[in-house]
Amino acid sequence: MIRFNNDYNRGAFDCILKALADTNTTSYPGYGEDEWCDKAEQIIKGLIGRDDSMIKFIPGATQANYVVVAAALSPVQSVIAADTGHINCHEAASIENTGHKILALPNTDGKISAAQIEACAAEYYDNAKPEYLTEPKMVYISFPTEQGTLYTKRELCDISAVCKKYGMYLFVDGARMGYGLGSDKNDLTLCDFAMLSDVFYIGGTKCGALFGEALVINAEDIKYRFKAYMKQNGAVLAKGWLMGLQFATMLENGDYFEKTKRADELAMQIKEAFEQKKVPFWVESFTNQQFVILSDEQKKTLAEKYYFEEMEREKEGTVVRFCTSWATKQEEVDALVLDISKLV
Amino acid sequence: MIRFNNDYNRGAFDCILKALADTNTTSYPGYGEDEWCDKAEQIIKGLIGRDDSMIKFIPGATQANYVVVAAALSPVQSVIAADTGHINCHEAASIENTGHKILALPNTDGKISAAQIEACAAEYYDNAKPEYLTEPKMVYISFPTEQGTLYTKRELCDISAVCKKYGMYLFVDGARMGYGLGSDKNDLTLCDFAMLSDVFYIGGTKCGALFGEALVINAEDIKYRFKAYMKQNGAVLAKGWLMGLQFATMLENGDYFEKTKRADELAMQIKEAFEQKKVPFWVESFTNQQFVILSDEQKKTLAEKYYFEEMEREKEGTVVRFCTSWATKQEEVDALVLDISKLV
Amino acid sequence: MIRFNNDYNRGAFDCILKALADTNTTSYPGYGEDEWCDKAEQIIKGLIGRDDSMIKFIPGATQANYVVVAAALSPVQSVIAADTGHINCHEAASIENTGHKILALPNTDGKISAAQIEACAAEYYDNAKPEYLTEPKMVYISFPTEQGTLYTKRELCDISAVCKKYGMYLFVDGARMGYGLGSDKNDLTLCDFAMLSDVFYIGGTKCGALFGEALVINAEDIKYRFKAYMKQNGAVLAKGWLMGLQFATMLENGDYFEKTKRADELAMQIKEAFEQKKVPFWVESFTNQQFVILSDEQKKTLAEKYYFEEMEREKEGTVVRFCTSWATKQEEVDALVLDISKLV
Amino acid sequence: MIRFNNDYNRGAFDCILKALADTNTTSYPGYGEDEWCDKAEQIIKGLIGRDDSMIKFIPGATQANYVVVAAALSPVQSVIAADTGHINCHEAASIENTGHKILALPNTDGKISAAQIEACAAEYYDNAKPEYLTEPKMVYISFPTEQGTLYTKRELCDISAVCKKYGMYLFVDGARMGYGLGSDKNDLTLCDFAMLSDVFYIGGTKCGALFGEALVINAEDIKYRFKAYMKQNGAVLAKGWLMGLQFATMLENGDYFEKTKRADELAMQIKEAFEQKKVPFWVESFTNQQFVILSDEQKKTLAEKYYFEEMEREKEGTVVRFCTSWATKQEEVDALVLDISKLV
Repeated sequence: MIRFNNDYNRGAFDCILKALADTNTTSYPGYGEDEWCDKAEQIIKGLIGRDDSMIKFIPGATQANYVVVAAALSPVQSVIAADTGHINCHEAASIENTGHKILALPNTDGKISAAQIEACAAEYYDNAKPEYLTEPKMVYISFPTEQGTLYTKRELCDISAVCKKYGMYLFVDGARMGYGLGSDKNDLTLCDFAMLSDVFYIGGTKCGALFGEALVINAEDIKYRFKAYMKQNGAVLAKGWLMGLQFATMLENGDYFEKTKRADELAMQIKEAFEQKKVPFWVESFTNQQFVILSDEQKKTLAEKYYFEEMEREKEGTVVRFCTSWATKQEEVDALVLDISKLV
Repeated sequence: MIRFNNDYNRGAFDCILKALADTNTTSYPGYGEDEWCDKAEQIIKGLIGRDDSMIKFIPGATQANYVVVAAALSPVQSVIAADTGHINCHEAASIENTGHKILALPNTDGKISAAQIEACAAEYYDNAKPEYLTEPKMVYISFPTEQGTLYTKRELCDISAVCKKYGMYLFVDGARMGYGLGSDKNDLTLCDFAMLSDVFYIGGTKCGALFGEALVINAEDIKYRFKAYMKQNGAVLAKGWLMGLQFATMLENGDYFEKTKRADELAMQIKEAFEQKKVPFWVESFTNQQFVILSDEQKKTLAEKYYFEEMEREKEGTVVRFCTSWATKQEEVDALVLDISKLV
Repeated sequence: MIRFNNDYNRGAFDCILKALADTNTTSYPGYGEDEWCDKAEQIIKGLIGRDDSMIKFIPGATQANYVVVAAALSPVQSVIAADTGHINCHEAASIENTGHKILALPNTDGKISAAQIEACAAEYYDNAKPEYLTEPKMVYISFPTEQGTLYTKRELCDISAVCKKYGMYLFVDGARMGYGLGSDKNDLTLCDFAMLSDVFYIGGTKCGALFGEALVINAEDIKYRFKAYMKQNGAVLAKGWLMGLQFATMLENGDYFEKTKRADELAMQIKEAFEQKKVPFWVESFTNQQFVILSDEQKKTLAEKYYFEEMEREKEGTVVRFCTSWATKQEEVDALVLDISKLV
Repeated sequence: MIRFNNDYNRGAFDCILKALADTNTTSYPGYGEDEWCDKAEQIIKGLIGRDDSMIKFIPGATQANYVVVAAALSPVQSVIAADTGHINCHEAASIENTGHKILALPNTDGKISAAQIEACAAEYYDNAKPEYLTEPKMVYISFPTEQGTLYTKRELCDISAVCKKYGMYLFVDGARMGYGLGSDKNDLTLCDFAMLSDVFYIGGTKCGALFGEALVINAEDIKYRFKAYMKQNGAVLAKGWLMGLQFATMLENGDYFEKTKRADELAMQIKEAFEQKKVPFWVESFTNQQFVILSDEQKKTLAEKYYFEEMEREKEGTVVRFCTSWATKQEEVDALVLDISKLV
C-alpha cells in the first residue's frame, strides 16, 4: 500500500535526522532559549525581510492557532474565518474553548474575500459597536487553504487593507506554507506575508519536520508576554532546541522549499492523470492536495493499492483527497498515474 | 561548563535516535493510531499489570497536567495540590486558565499528607456541600515531588483511601517517574500506581526521550472522549508514532529504568560530597535532584564550571539545585565531587 | 411618544408591586431558600404537571441561557441552534465565552426543523464520533422565536425525538413564554414543554415581572450541583425571595397568562392594520412581536409618535418590529392602528 | 425569631418601594440607557468628586467582582487577594472560572498589607517576569472586609502606592460600603476611593436596595468595551432603570448613608453587651458585623430567639456572626442586648 492520504505520514528530511544525531550528546538551555532557536530565528528573519518580528516555535498547528487567538483577543472579541477553516471544523472547537466566537463566512474553494470580510466587520464597526455583539478583531485564513487553493497577492493585499481599515489582525495559518510557496500558480513570498499579515506561521509538521511550526509575529500587541500564553497552554517544549535545530537545518539547506515544491510537481502529474481520465474535480488545486470525485468502482479499485482520504459523499460519488508530500517518490506517483489511466 | 541545571538538557537515548533513523522512511497513520503506539501501549499495560487502562501519549507535561484536569473536572470542581505542586507554581496558571481552582495545601518537603487532604475535602463534603464552594474532586501529587522527595507506599495508600472515601480522583504527575522508581529509598512500583491512582503518567521528556509523556488512565469516567480533550488542547501530535516509538523502545530495552536509576546513583555521590563538606541541605532527597544551600562564595566557585539552578534566596545563602540525568556521565560527577570537596 | 419598541419597557404587574410592598418589612432567608420560592416552585410544578423537576429562579435570560449550557455541557460538547437564536446573535458570545461552540443552522422564520437537527447530529454521531469535532449535545430553540413565530406540538415532538435518538438535551428558551402560550395559533402547553424538553424556562422579565426567569430542569444530569453553577456565574440573587414572590403572585392570580394573551390580541389588531394597508410583512407572526417592512416615508411618519425597533435594511425598505406587551393599552394600539391606516 | 444572620434579609428602603410604585407605568429605554441611570450616575459623580469615572449598575456582587476581573485581566494575569477575600472563598471559584488565578495572601483580621502585596508582586516583577508565573495585575480588597474590619486611609494609600509602582489595578469590593463609611472608626470617603482605586463599588444589595451594585470605574483601560463584558456575563439587566432609580433615590435622600450608619451604631450596642459579658471576640469590628465565640450553651440559648450565622468551630466554642442592617430596629437590638446580659 502506498500512502497518499496526507502529508504527515513519514518522519523527516534526512538532514534533520542527521542534525539530531550530531547534537544528541550536546547539552542545551531549555524552553527555546538556545543557540539553535537563535539561529533559526535569524534565518527566518532573513527570509521574511523583517528584523523586528518575534519568532516562536510551537510543537503543533492546533496549538499554534489557538495560542495566537488566546494571546491576541480579549473575551469580547471574535475571529472571522472561512466555514471550511481548519480552526472552524478540524480542531475540536479549540478556539471556542478559549472563549472566542468564530464568525464563519461561506467559502469559495476554501477562500473568503475581502468584500465578505468587510461586510462582516461593518455590521459591528459601522453600526455603533453594539455591546450584544462580539468585536471582530482577527481574520484567519489558511495558505494554502484546506482545499489546496491559494490566495493571490492581490487578494491578500485586499484582505490586509480591510483588516487595517477596521483595526483587525490578519492571521495566516501556514501549516502547508512550503506547498503554497512552491506552487507554479503562487505569486506570494514570505516577505509578502511578513508585510501583509500580523502573524503567520511557516509550517514544519506537514513540510518535512518531525514536528513544529515557526510562528512569525509582526504585530507589537501580540508579542507582549506571548511566551506566557505559550507556557500556559503547554506550547513551550522543554527541549525547545529540537525545533530550532529542525527549522535552521531545513531552511538553511533549502530542503524546506525544494522538496515541497517537488511535491507540488508530483501532485500536478496526478492532477493531469485525473484530467486525462475526465474524473471530475471537487475543486481545482495547484498544490500538493488534489480533490477528485470518484465513482464507487473507481474508489474501490484505487483503494486496493493506495491510501487516500475520503472527504464526503456527494451525489456523483465520493470526494477524496490524494496528497503528495516532501517524501513522496516519483515511482509512487508513476504507479498511481498508471492506475488512474486504467480506471473505468 | 557542565550542565547540572536540569534533566532535560540533552537529546535522547541512543536507542531512540536509532529507532527514528530506522523508521524514517516508513509511512504511518497519523494522530497516534499507529502500530508503534499500539506496541508501546501493550508494553505499558504489561508493566503496570492492568489491561483495562487507557494509554495516551502527550508531547509535554504541562499539557498532560491540564488536559487531564480539563477532562476530569466540571467547572464547579477543583483540584487539591501541594502549594509547591508543579501545576500551582510552574505552569503559568494553566489549571486556572481551564477554569479550575487549585486548593493549595502547605507542603512538607514537597509532599502533602492524607490527613491534610482529608481535612480539606471534609470542609466541603462533610459540611452540606455548599454551593459557594467548589467541589474538591481531584488530588494532584508529584512522584517524585518538585523537591526530589518520594511518597512511600504507605502514604500513597492512605491518600488513595481518602480519595476513595470522598469520590475524588487521584492524579500522579510522573514527569520524573524513572528517577522515582530508581531510587534506593523507593518502595512503589508502576503496578502500585496503576492500582492506587485514577490517572498517572510515565514521564518521557525528563527521563531520556526527546519529548512525550505516557498517560495511564485508570478511571472509567476520565476515559470518555479523552482524545477529544487532547485534540481541543492541541495535544494530539500529527506524527503520533514518534511518541509510541520512543516509549516502546526505551521501555522495552530497559534504558528508561536503568539509566534513570544510574542518574539517582550519581546524585547520591553528589549528595555524599555535600554531606562530607557539611553544606546544609534544603531538603533531603534520594533522587536525581539535590537541593543545597550555598554561601555566596561557594556558589561563585561552583558557577565557574557548572550550570545549576538557583531556587531562592534564604538567610543562610542561596538554595540551588544540582540535577543529574540519564545522560550525566561519571566523569562529570567526579569533577563536581572533587570541586565540592575543595569548597571553603 | 408611545413605546412599541420592546416588551420590557415598563415596571411590573400591579399585583407584584403590591406584594413587594406587603412583604417589605418581613425578613427572609437568602439565596432562594425561602418560602416564596417554595411556593412558586409548587405552583409551577402544578402548572407543568411534573413533581420531579427542579425549579430555579435566575435574574436574567442571558444568564439563564449560558448557565444552563455551562452546567449541561462538557468542554468538548456543543449546542445546536438557529442562526437567529438569541444565544447566537444577541448575547455577546456568552456561550463561546463559557467554552462551547454553537452549531448554527439556517433558520426558516426563526425556526429550525427536526430534519436539520438530525442531519447536523448525524455528521458526528453516525460518523465515528471523530475527536476533531465537538459532540453536539444540546439543541436550543426559542418559544416564541426571536421572530415571533411558534413551534407546533408536532414540530416540538419531532425535535424531541431526534434529541432522544442521539442523547442530546433539548433546551427551550421561554423568555417570551407567556406570549407564546397566549397566541391563538399555539397548540403547546407548559405540560408539553415539561414532557418534551430537558430544560426550559418561563420568562418573567418580558412577561410582566420586574426581572427573573423560572428555570424548569427536567433532566437528572443537569440538576446535579446546578446551584453551584448559578453561584459561580453570579446568578444566585441574595434576596432570592424577590423572584419567588413575583412568580408565585403572577402565576397564581393568572396575570402572567391573561395579560400576555391580551398583548397578543392587541398585536393582532396591529397586524390587521398593516395587512389592510398592504404593508409587507418580513415574517408572519401570531404573537406580540410584529415585523413589517416600511418604506422610508412610512418609517418617518410612524417614528414621529412611536418607538419601534429597526432590525435591518432590505431592498424594499426597513424591517422594523412593533412589540406589544402585558402593559400595552388598547388606546395606544388604537392610536397606532389609526396612524397605520393613514399611511401612504 | 429575629434575624441577625445577615444584612440582606429584608426588602428595601421605603423610598425605593415608593419610587418603584410611582414609576411603574412609565416606559423606559432598556439596558441601563435611561434617565434614572443617568441621574444616579450624576449623583455618584458628585459624591465621588470625579466626573471622568464610568458608572455601571450590576445586579449582584459576585457578578460585579468577576466581570471586573474578566474585563481587566488577560488570561496570563492574576489577582492578589486576602485568603478570606469574598472572591476567594464565597463565590464558587467564579474568578478561576473566568480563567484567572487568585494569589491568596494570609489575612490579618480580614486585611492584607501593602508590604505583603509588595512582596508578592516583587516575586514576579522584580524577578525577570518569568513566563511560568502569572502576572499579578490586580489587587482586590474589601471595604469593610468580610470580618467587618476597615482599612485606614493610611493603609489604603500605601496599598495604592504599591499598585501604582507595579502597574497593578486596585479593586475595592464595596458590597458593604455604607456600613464602612458609617463607622465611627472610619477615616475614608467616597472621594478617597475614587482617587486611590482603579475600580470600586457602592454596594446596594446589602445596604438597603432590593438589589444592585454601583460600579465606579476610574482606570481608562477597564472602561473600554466594559458593557460588552457585562452583557457577555449576563450582567446587563433588561429593565436597567430599576437600579438607576434605586441608587438615585437612596443616595439623594441620604438613606444610604444614614441608615447604614445607624446599623453600625446598633452593632456597637451589641458589641458592648458582649464585652460586658466578657464573651470573647473572634475579631474586633466597628461595623455592622460582630463576630464572637460562644460556648455551646450560650449558642443554644441565643438560637432560641435569634438567627445568626455560624462561621466555624474553634476549641473555645463556635465563631458566630451577629449582623445588623439598615432595617434592624432598636427594639430588636434591645431584646438581644438583654438576652446577652443574661447569658451564663
